[in-house]
Amino acid sequence: MSEDEKKPKNPSRRAFLKSTGGAAAIAGIALGGLAVNPKETAAALNPMPKKWDETYDVVIIGSGFAGLAAAIEAKNAGATVTVIEKMFVHGGNSIINGGDFSAAGTKMQKEAGIQDSADIMYNDMMKTGLYLNHPGLAKTVAEQSNSALEWCQSLGARFAKVGFHGGHSVKRAHQTINASGSEVVNKLFDKVNALGIKVQTRTKLVRFVSDKGGRIVGIEVRTGYKFPDEKSGKTAYIKARKAVVLTSGGFSQDLALRQIEDPRLTDKFGSTNQPGATGEALLAACMAGAMDLQMDWIQLGPWTSPDEKGFGHVPLFCERLVGYGPMINPKTGKRFFKETGNRKERADAIILIGNPVIIMGDSYAVPKQVFPNALQKGMEAGAIKKFDTLEDLAKNYNIPFEAFTAEIAKWNSFVEKKKDADLDCMIFQDAKPTVTPPFYAARLWPKVHHTMGGLVIDNNAQVMGFDLKPVKGLYAAGEVSGGVHGAVRLGGVAMADCIVFGRIAGKNAAKEKSQI
Amino acid sequence: MSEDEKKPKNPSRRAFLKSTGGAAAIAGIALGGLAVNPKETAAALNPMPKKWDETYDVVIIGSGFAGLAAAIEAKNAGATVTVIEKMFVHGGNSIINGGDFSAAGTKMQKEAGIQDSADIMYNDMMKTGLYLNHPGLAKTVAEQSNSALEWCQSLGARFAKVGFHGGHSVKRAHQTINASGSEVVNKLFDKVNALGIKVQTRTKLVRFVSDKGGRIVGIEVRTGYKFPDEKSGKTAYIKARKAVVLTSGGFSQDLALRQIEDPRLTDKFGSTNQPGATGEALLAACMAGAMDLQMDWIQLGPWTSPDEKGFGHVPLFCERLVGYGPMINPKTGKRFFKETGNRKERADAIILIGNPVIIMGDSYAVPKQVFPNALQKGMEAGAIKKFDTLEDLAKNYNIPFEAFTAEIAKWNSFVEKKKDADLDCMIFQDAKPTVTPPFYAARLWPKVHHTMGGLVIDNNAQVMGFDLKPVKGLYAAGEVSGGVHGAVRLGGVAMADCIVFGRIAGKNAAKEKSQI
Repeated sequence: MSEDEKKPKNPSRRAFLKSTGGAAAIAGIALGGLAVNPKETAAALNPMPKKWDETYDVVIIGSGFAGLAAAIEAKNAGATVTVIEKMFVHGGNSIINGGDFSAAGTKMQKEAGIQDSADIMYNDMMKTGLYLNHPGLAKTVAEQSNSALEWCQSLGARFAKVGFHGGHSVKRAHQTINASGSEVVNKLFDKVNALGIKVQTRTKLVRFVSDKGGRIVGIEVRTGYKFPDEKSGKTAYIKARKAVVLTSGGFSQDLALRQIEDPRLTDKFGSTNQPGATGEALLAACMAGAMDLQMDWIQLGPWTSPDEKGFGHVPLFCERLVGYGPMINPKTGKRFFKETGNRKERADAIILIGNPVIIMGDSYAVPKQVFPNALQKGMEAGAIKKFDTLEDLAKNYNIPFEAFTAEIAKWNSFVEKKKDADLDCMIFQDAKPTVTPPFYAARLWPKVHHTMGGLVIDNNAQVMGFDLKPVKGLYAAGEVSGGVHGAVRLGGVAMADCIVFGRIAGKNAAKEKSQI
Repeated sequence: MSEDEKKPKNPSRRAFLKSTGGAAAIAGIALGGLAVNPKETAAALNPMPKKWDETYDVVIIGSGFAGLAAAIEAKNAGATVTVIEKMFVHGGNSIINGGDFSAAGTKMQKEAGIQDSADIMYNDMMKTGLYLNHPGLAKTVAEQSNSALEWCQSLGARFAKVGFHGGHSVKRAHQTINASGSEVVNKLFDKVNALGIKVQTRTKLVRFVSDKGGRIVGIEVRTGYKFPDEKSGKTAYIKARKAVVLTSGGFSQDLALRQIEDPRLTDKFGSTNQPGATGEALLAACMAGAMDLQMDWIQLGPWTSPDEKGFGHVPLFCERLVGYGPMINPKTGKRFFKETGNRKERADAIILIGNPVIIMGDSYAVPKQVFPNALQKGMEAGAIKKFDTLEDLAKNYNIPFEAFTAEIAKWNSFVEKKKDADLDCMIFQDAKPTVTPPFYAARLWPKVHHTMGGLVIDNNAQVMGFDLKPVKGLYAAGEVSGGVHGAVRLGGVAMADCIVFGRIAGKNAAKEKSQI
């Protein structure tokens, strides 16, 4: 034991604990010595407070899919657990997501006659991810996607049908009965409550607390925090005897951070995410020595509408229609990109055009494909419109009518042959020509949807540091982690990622040796 | 002043300073208190040592273009300066680079009748960078490229001709008289010596030292370091009264780091860089709170040869020939991608083919375009070959002869029209059909060449931290910084970037208020 460890607690520390922080507190840091390993040096600066306000085996930051899954698994493995959430309500971005869970080789797929496997899903993820995915992470998600789906079902989550998302080889998006992630969040939250796990809302992470070896042993938080008032709430310390699990989500709403990584993403682009989807918890982990990767891959949803706020209803309209109806540039009246292309391809194509485009379908495709509630709400919001004739539709969007009708005729000939000779759109076997009135259409303009980059994790959800070694006591899962999706995340794989790695993180956190 | 600042130096610190580091030293850290701001917390952990072995106003890490330019400017601004370099010799990767300095609106361009401007160069950088470039940084490089070139010339650096690199709109690569960056490094180094600046080789950065406010005030190094023996050398501390300038280069040779950011880049891909082009100094800055960005954009040179080591001579052969001679896939005998495409496009196209390809030229194009020394050395290395007939060339590379001669005939017809109807290669006005024997050819297979990502800097070369605020006392320039090039760096812009931002960093470091 060194001299420092033996010496009594110094007075300035007590003085600090009474303060609410600020410059006076900074001056309280002792300059006790030097260390050679920069990682241990940096992390060791965050010492244990004199008094922990609360103590658990596992402390989870964030209450979306990943956080709730981690909480359940950690508790089931025998750990005491708490979940903190900075917002007023639990659920994070998960509770407002579209409710599509991509999984391969499932019972529902078999019943629908869909041939699929973890290998096919893995290959789709890698190809779309431009092979920047960490192969072990992508493989883990693909291989465990079915068991993760079944686990959600075992907790009561209900799924209605298997749909398609661009970039996948087959239909594998298992849509919840209410076309919302809330169906899964609610069932996970019920289980969390049944297990007696305390979910502390309005509790915001300020920084990680490390022991002298650089191990994360707890967190400093603001309780009673009122988003987005950074001065609200008061300081408290929560000890994690075993580990902290970071499941704080992405940073699609973080204008400053997203513009550092991709300067194009100014406020001209909205976001589909809830307002709390900011990056301060991710950055706090970096300040504690955790390494980030591939942060510049920020996904724009190509299926959002400028005619409604946030995620809205049009994405559910658009994504169910691709492969059944054409996407048209109103300036030319022509198609411009394959409707079943992946998210990045389509968003880039729309941004290149520079004006909103149209997705449309007829009265065969729309009732068959689109969830009635999404259609109704999209129409109520004025973002989806119904037209008795193609002429009316063209007139409404200022589409040159002759070019448009010629293009629809061509599209219909492709649908008959089930082969798109122009743009190689995947046309589904049950698709029919777009001829049956009334016609439905919505405008599309990309919004920031998902941040693929994040903390470096291994297959055990263990976070890695800038010294290329584990940050002990720190796990991460879901959108705050990076490497699963590579350059481009496929639709519905976020849910699979969050549940698969949330469960892994929770189990492994609970297995850590307890730090007294 | 806090209690901690007043208390006497503790014994463990002295004990530590005698040690050469390791676990015993770690135990010497005092747990003096807590701080609220994670950035200041993390940085403040690296306190000043009891004794600084050396003290300068400005301490520069790395002795390539950027480091030497920074040293000269800092010294000219009145600062005392030292440069540390971990390798046995100065010059970093700059001393082995191809010696092409991209600059816009120069005297040499005007003399050659080339219309160019900073705006055109900026637009080329942004377009090729996929608009991920930080606009202010790219603009700074484009606007100051001419004055940076003239500054090098004023120090004696000689440039022979203005050449072309794929992705640029015009010829703007000012090639040094020996087709090597050593011409510029040597002249900068002469000036550094003339100014009495000490360049300390075999001195490796271990970590940054911060004061209590998080300001970088010096560095811990290993002197007498023998690359790559991490246990060699001994600990010393160098104080920077004004600032530290990090110009440590990229991480193309860092297998672990590059695979975290791009898992494809295993040891199956060589590198054009010197072996010391590893990322530990960049990561040490992150451990001290500096933020990184766009780290996954790692450039492969499409013009390297598998038939010689490192950068070799073939890049100078290939890059002078594009727009004059065709690039052929030997498996098919056909061209496969526009020869004047940017680096990423061409490297991706070759990787997709999966085997080395051929670049070739005839006895009109080669003597006209290729630097004689590069041609001779490439031939001596066996990487560039000469053939009396196209038949001999085809036989040597197992190219199907009929397809090949048909393709050459087509290429020649494009050259006559100065328009490539197949692949849209830019064909220069003085190009002639490839018909004059003997013919020259070389095989191409990509090598890791440049890492576009790095530390976040502003237009003043000031490093930004994970708290989105400046890391006081820390500047960065050249390849260790990110944001100038975005997704893809254009040929020759590295030299412009290093000299422009090296100068800016040196000037601004010298302007900092001295910390006593």
